[in-house]
Amino acid sequence: MSSTLECPGASAPSTAGPVVSLTTDFGVVDGYVGTVHGVVLREAPAARIVDLCHAVKPQHVLGGAFHLRHAWRHFGPGTIHVAVIDPGVGSGRRILALDHGGQYFLAPDNGLLAAALGSAALREAAASGALTTLEPARVSRGPVSATFHARDLFAPAAAALVRGVARAALGSVCTDPVLLDFPSPEVAGRHVRAEVLHIDHFGNAISSFAPAQVAFAPAQVAFEPSAWRALVGGRSVPCVTTYADVPSGALLALVDSFGHLELAVRDGHAARELRLDLGSAVEFERLH
Amino acid sequence: MSSTLECPGASAPSTAGPVVSLTTDFGVVDGYVGTVHGVVLREAPAARIVDLCHAVKPQHVLGGAFHLRHAWRHFGPGTIHVAVIDPGVGSGRRILALDHGGQYFLAPDNGLLAAALGSAALREAAASGALTTLEPARVSRGPVSATFHARDLFAPAAAALVRGVARAALGSVCTDPVLLDFPSPEVAGRHVRAEVLHIDHFGNAISSFAPAQVAFAPAQVAFEPSAWRALVGGRSVPCVTTYADVPSGALLALVDSFGHLELAVRDGHAARELRLDLGSAVEFERLH
Amino acid sequence: MSSTLECPGASAPSTAGPVVSLTTDFGVVDGYVGTVHGVVLREAPAARIVDLCHAVKPQHVLGGAFHLRHAWRHFGPGTIHVAVIDPGVGSGRRILALDHGGQYFLAPDNGLLAAALGSAALREAAASGALTTLEPARVSRGPVSATFHARDLFAPAAAALVRGVARAALGSVCTDPVLLDFPSPEVAGRHVRAEVLHIDHFGNAISSFAPAQVAFAPAQVAFEPSAWRALVGGRSVPCVTTYADVPSGALLALVDSFGHLELAVRDGHAARELRLDLGSAVEFERLH
Repeated sequence: MSSTLECPGASAPSTAGPVVSLTTDFGVVDGYVGTVHGVVLREAPAARIVDLCHAVKPQHVLGGAFHLRHAWRHFGPGTIHVAVIDPGVGSGRRILALDHGGQYFLAPDNGLLAAALGSAALREAAASGALTTLEPARVSRGPVSATFHARDLFAPAAAALVRGVARAALGSVCTDPVLLDFPSPEVAGRHVRAEVLHIDHFGNAISSFAPAQVAFAPAQVAFEPSAWRALVGGRSVPCVTTYADVPSGALLALVDSFGHLELAVRDGHAARELRLDLGSAVEFERLH
Repeated sequence: MSSTLECPGASAPSTAGPVVSLTTDFGVVDGYVGTVHGVVLREAPAARIVDLCHAVKPQHVLGGAFHLRHAWRHFGPGTIHVAVIDPGVGSGRRILALDHGGQYFLAPDNGLLAAALGSAALREAAASGALTTLEPARVSRGPVSATFHARDLFAPAAAALVRGVARAALGSVCTDPVLLDFPSPEVAGRHVRAEVLHIDHFGNAISSFAPAQVAFAPAQVAFEPSAWRALVGGRSVPCVTTYADVPSGALLALVDSFGHLELAVRDGHAARELRLDLGSAVEFERLH
Repeated sequence: MSSTLECPGASAPSTAGPVVSLTTDFGVVDGYVGTVHGVVLREAPAARIVDLCHAVKPQHVLGGAFHLRHAWRHFGPGTIHVAVIDPGVGSGRRILALDHGGQYFLAPDNGLLAAALGSAALREAAASGALTTLEPARVSRGPVSATFHARDLFAPAAAALVRGVARAALGSVCTDPVLLDFPSPEVAGRHVRAEVLHIDHFGNAISSFAPAQVAFAPAQVAFEPSAWRALVGGRSVPCVTTYADVPSGALLALVDSFGHLELAVRDGHAARELRLDLGSAVEFERLH
């Protein structure tokens, strides 16, 4: 998407620096996230920081990857995405810096980047020199805590990128990143067996079935909602185009803003009503 | 309010762009809000974004209007307020862009703006050409999802305003916006029957009784707290000037920072103690 | 910590103004925090605002001091820290503006600053003219509510500092600030009796025992985790260096990123498992 409106008398070019997005499992009850902001702004005053998500379930690497996967393309070129879901903090696990699609990505080497961007993309980056293992001494001269690398390593690394330091200068080439994939739906004839990847604030249950990514036989030109239904806990749920296609309180399934089939209740909370949780099975059936 | 302190040796004029405020029911557990930040900053790097409130009860249009109503005057000229409580997303409901009081407002056409700014103000804007129905094609060339217009339409529209695009250029004139009002208190002799509009983080219950907006007979010069008491669930609650006027743990009512009568417990949680919820009845009595 | 990477071809110096950090007990369900952002940006467009923490337990002055204490050194020179945990709002309590360590601090005069920075530091500041009692009329010409000084006084005062107004010009010299200290651990031979100061989002329980701040006899060169254990609720917990030193699900104690001994469960929630709350007793024993 890009604007069709241009403004001839627009103000002088902004001196705003690159955007740094943060995705963590730090929650919002502590000063951890604010401290990371402080370090980035201290080291790179021009940075503009966006909190993408801090409510990832603690240590849930795929949960962080989920948010990054669906958000990064909506950011501008040169954005630096920092994702810290890091059960291995303080151990020997590496920190990776990646160049991909005109943006940068910093994350622990635990599969987060592969899950967010696809294992194929990560393998390709590793083969082409676009992936760097961060060397702590290149980023920080100060003490590094055993528990808060977001403050002591990720933030200074992001700030270095903001200041224009080359990604490759942050460390050495990485050729063997940890790979991790989201569970794929299983296609069997007219049925697609998927699972719940995420439950959002509204109680919508986002499934692993993204029609555009699944090859059907015979090939479909486009996913046609009315040709499908969802089957959840013995209930049949119609596939529609938008929430307003059903009455208030009714169950529905639709292709959401991530391109995934989502179970929802109009003006309601589908996960509660259908007793769905992360990993719950949901099935979709092609009717004709 | 404006500062009485001027600084002769102040730094060069800032190149900071307009402020964009966001009010939604998106919550803080997903990447939705961060993605909206990303789009605004991609399309308008000079924008400065403020999260006004993302904890509006899902689909509760008046809840969003409540926060915007009490906050917008505290922002500077040229601010662009984006409010997305949008049960009709994906349906035919319109998106409005409004010029009011030197600031801009973007919201679905569901009464939110009338509730936030007053139906009279909205009617006047509609009559004078200050209200625009957004035309999606003027704002976005990309695909528009059926479920996430904050990302696909509101954010690019806000960014266009940041870049200096004229509000009227975003679409066509709107003359018939949806109108919606907050419930008004009922005045009967010495009694004012109001209801709870909002319960805040501290458990304070903000009522619909804003003394400055109610005409009494005989006319009062100013609201005098000591002349009033609140009656809630059979309990009599003194009206005072500030929390510190009562001992810790005691009930009180006062005119809060919104200009509304609020039920509170000093150092405590009034809504829990008085079993108040949105819409609960609260009565105020003039004693003399 | 400072970066070892310099960038010869870096962009022009940023025109970004000073950072303003906010620490409050306002929570994240209302428009209070966003309104404070709006006022700061209206009065000082160059300000860059960081939300340090808004989840301090209501009225818990030490809770706010805890976050500020552990975060402020990570911010850059000239940062303006605003901390509003303010049970006395609307009473006669003073508002203080402090110059310390190249940064500024605004807080109610209720001990918050002494707890965050140390009573010795605050006494020294008071003796040397580095502490100012804010005069409301110097900061605001508008009406000041009885309940929301963060909006009506703290935000304009922070904005004045951003614009370059001298701290001393905000009011008159303060020589007698309220002092408050965090509870100190009690050292008795091989035992240190501490208490829980904070429970974080992960359920880690941060104790009042910060080894670097405790004098032992005989003097230790450095705290050696393997020479210690924690005793909590009859359980013996090993002191280690990092979470990854124990298996998933196991209890541990370590020196955390604040320099304090913290009780944790790897990939788990220590406060729940050990039934710890704010103020709970935790004991540490030197084994050899």
